Amino acid sequence: MGTPRGNKSYISLGLKYRRETGAAELRVLDQRLLPAEERWLSAEDPAQMGHLIQELAVRGAPMIGVCAALSLACEASRGANAEQLRASARMLREARPTAVNLAWAVDRLLALPVERWIEEAERIAAEDIALCEGMARNGAALVAQGERVLTHCNTGGLATVGVGTALGVLRRAHEQGKAISVWVDETRPLLQGGRLTAWELGRLGIPYRLVVDSAAGMLMARGEVDRVLVGADRIACNGDAANKIGTYSLAVLARHHGVPFHIVAPRSTVDRACPDGAAIPIEQRAPDEVRGPWAPPDAPVYNPAFDTTPAELITSWILDDAVLSSQDVAEGALRTIEP
Amino acid sequence: MGTPRGNKSYISLGLKYRRETGAAELRVLDQRLLPAEERWLSAEDPAQMGHLIQELAVRGAPMIGVCAALSLACEASRGANAEQLRASARMLREARPTAVNLAWAVDRLLALPVERWIEEAERIAAEDIALCEGMARNGAALVAQGERVLTHCNTGGLATVGVGTALGVLRRAHEQGKAISVWVDETRPLLQGGRLTAWELGRLGIPYRLVVDSAAGMLMARGEVDRVLVGADRIACNGDAANKIGTYSLAVLARHHGVPFHIVAPRSTVDRACPDGAAIPIEQRAPDEVRGPWAPPDAPVYNPAFDTTPAELITSWILDDAVLSSQDVAEGALRTIEP
Repeated sequence: MGTPRGNKSYISLGLKYRRETGAAELRVLDQRLLPAEERWLSAEDPAQMGHLIQELAVRGAPMIGVCAALSLACEASRGANAEQLRASARMLREARPTAVNLAWAVDRLLALPVERWIEEAERIAAEDIALCEGMARNGAALVAQGERVLTHCNTGGLATVGVGTALGVLRRAHEQGKAISVWVDETRPLLQGGRLTAWELGRLGIPYRLVVDSAAGMLMARGEVDRVLVGADRIACNGDAANKIGTYSLAVLARHHGVPFHIVAPRSTVDRACPDGAAIPIEQRAPDEVRGPWAPPDAPVYNPAFDTTPAELITSWILDDAVLSSQDVAEGALRTIEP
Repeated sequence: MGTPRGNKSYISLGLKYRRETGAAELRVLDQRLLPAEERWLSAEDPAQMGHLIQELAVRGAPMIGVCAALSLACEASRGANAEQLRASARMLREARPTAVNLAWAVDRLLALPVERWIEEAERIAAEDIALCEGMARNGAALVAQGERVLTHCNTGGLATVGVGTALGVLRRAHEQGKAISVWVDETRPLLQGGRLTAWELGRLGIPYRLVVDSAAGMLMARGEVDRVLVGADRIACNGDAANKIGTYSLAVLARHHGVPFHIVAPRSTVDRACPDGAAIPIEQRAPDEVRGPWAPPDAPVYNPAFDTTPAELITSWILDDAVLSSQDVAEGALRTIEP
């Protein structure tokens, strides 16, 4: 069966995985319903997990990689054969195109005999927690007392199995007593900032204020933003980074106002096969996400889920094991990063 | 009674005013419900009009000035005495702080004996139509064949009694057969772009695509925006302009990408008593506009309705009777504009 000895469980803000005797169990928090309702969904079936990932019930670049791997572990623990498991893996790999972490996690399993998938999937989950700790440590060291940090989308305990990427940095800085405060972009169209980041920061007791995405320029002009911290869905070898739509606008605004702009991501977000941002596929999503119930029902819509920020607008790349400067990246530091 | 001879009526996309014999009648389209429902509200009572303006049932800088004046005309036509009329006028003047057109229109009445208010209010409405024609003519001359123009908020037939400010320019360019297309910012938090501009452009048959506000940067980076046209709620003597929150971010992005950025406004938007943008009062609105039903109900919010764009980011000011360049404005053209 390929089931490792011993028990294993991971419980995070958005995920519950448990393997004792017999089949492993996986439940995920339905992030579409947050913060109004905390509904947990069983997600041991990779086909269902693929659906949950596409619908953004489970989201966040690191999180969807871990969840895909753990759902395959669940299927393996239920005795699926190699053919079935590999078909499930190939399906999951294509569930969403932009975040490389998903393909990265699935490829780690596909490179191994299926007998080792449970062990490897659990290792990916454990690694995610450790990667988050590394980013939090590296990033928090850059955040000074009293800083007002602007962030976009959700990059915390719901987007990872650990403390998060950009939000993990803020959590650690807060725990260090730095009296930070956070400007939370609501992040249209799916409002991951207004729904998820606001919810997480409230739970953590970190002071924040929610703003519409277009307010960032005014805040910077008034000198109310000391730093921008965002996550990434894919980082190209030259340092260009894809992230939630609106990130590029923030980077231009930050440059105009002299505000440091940082990408926070684990090394699994670096795509060594991707030369630059132009090569990153950008997911186009459904028009109704933008139309909502308010726009004309036939309104033509352009709804890219991500945009790409060129390396020259990024102050530094806060990774789990390093903080890379523009010079580091220009000298090829991302090309040789350990996978 | 001070009622002028003859009949008078104005019927626009968002307003119906009629004075025949006896009391004048005023109805306005409830813009909060658009585009789902077209509900007309009677608005002859200035107190009610003040409420409708505060609630954004009636909105748009020129429109609220005209509507305030016409509701005072209605009250005058019903025989209210001078004391009552002047109290109503002072109340309406304070209904919203940022758009100077409101105070400008009310002040035109307050400067006259109440016997002349009906005539003057009707003149303000007639002038608005003519001012829009002037802006449309001046602006359309700048728009070239096939241009893709990005706009923010709503500046059309709902924001004025005429064809609009920025949207009036686009309408005229379309009527001239220039095959333009429009990127419509949805304009959070109140979605005047997604609800109203999309609705107007659809009715006019002008090709458009709706986008989230934060997509503007990506569109410009891809070379998909030839020009930005927006309205204004107040223009200071030095050319700084207050407009819907997010306008400043667009101006910075336009500058970064070399995209021309224009303010389109009638001369009534120029506040000759205002030296610069820092002196323009910015309305703060209710947190629930940003929270919606999705954010934590206790989420702290910062919700400025407007921001200010400095003159140095503005390519030109398209007025009803002139297109002013940066040099014109620097030389004081706005200080000496006819009221």
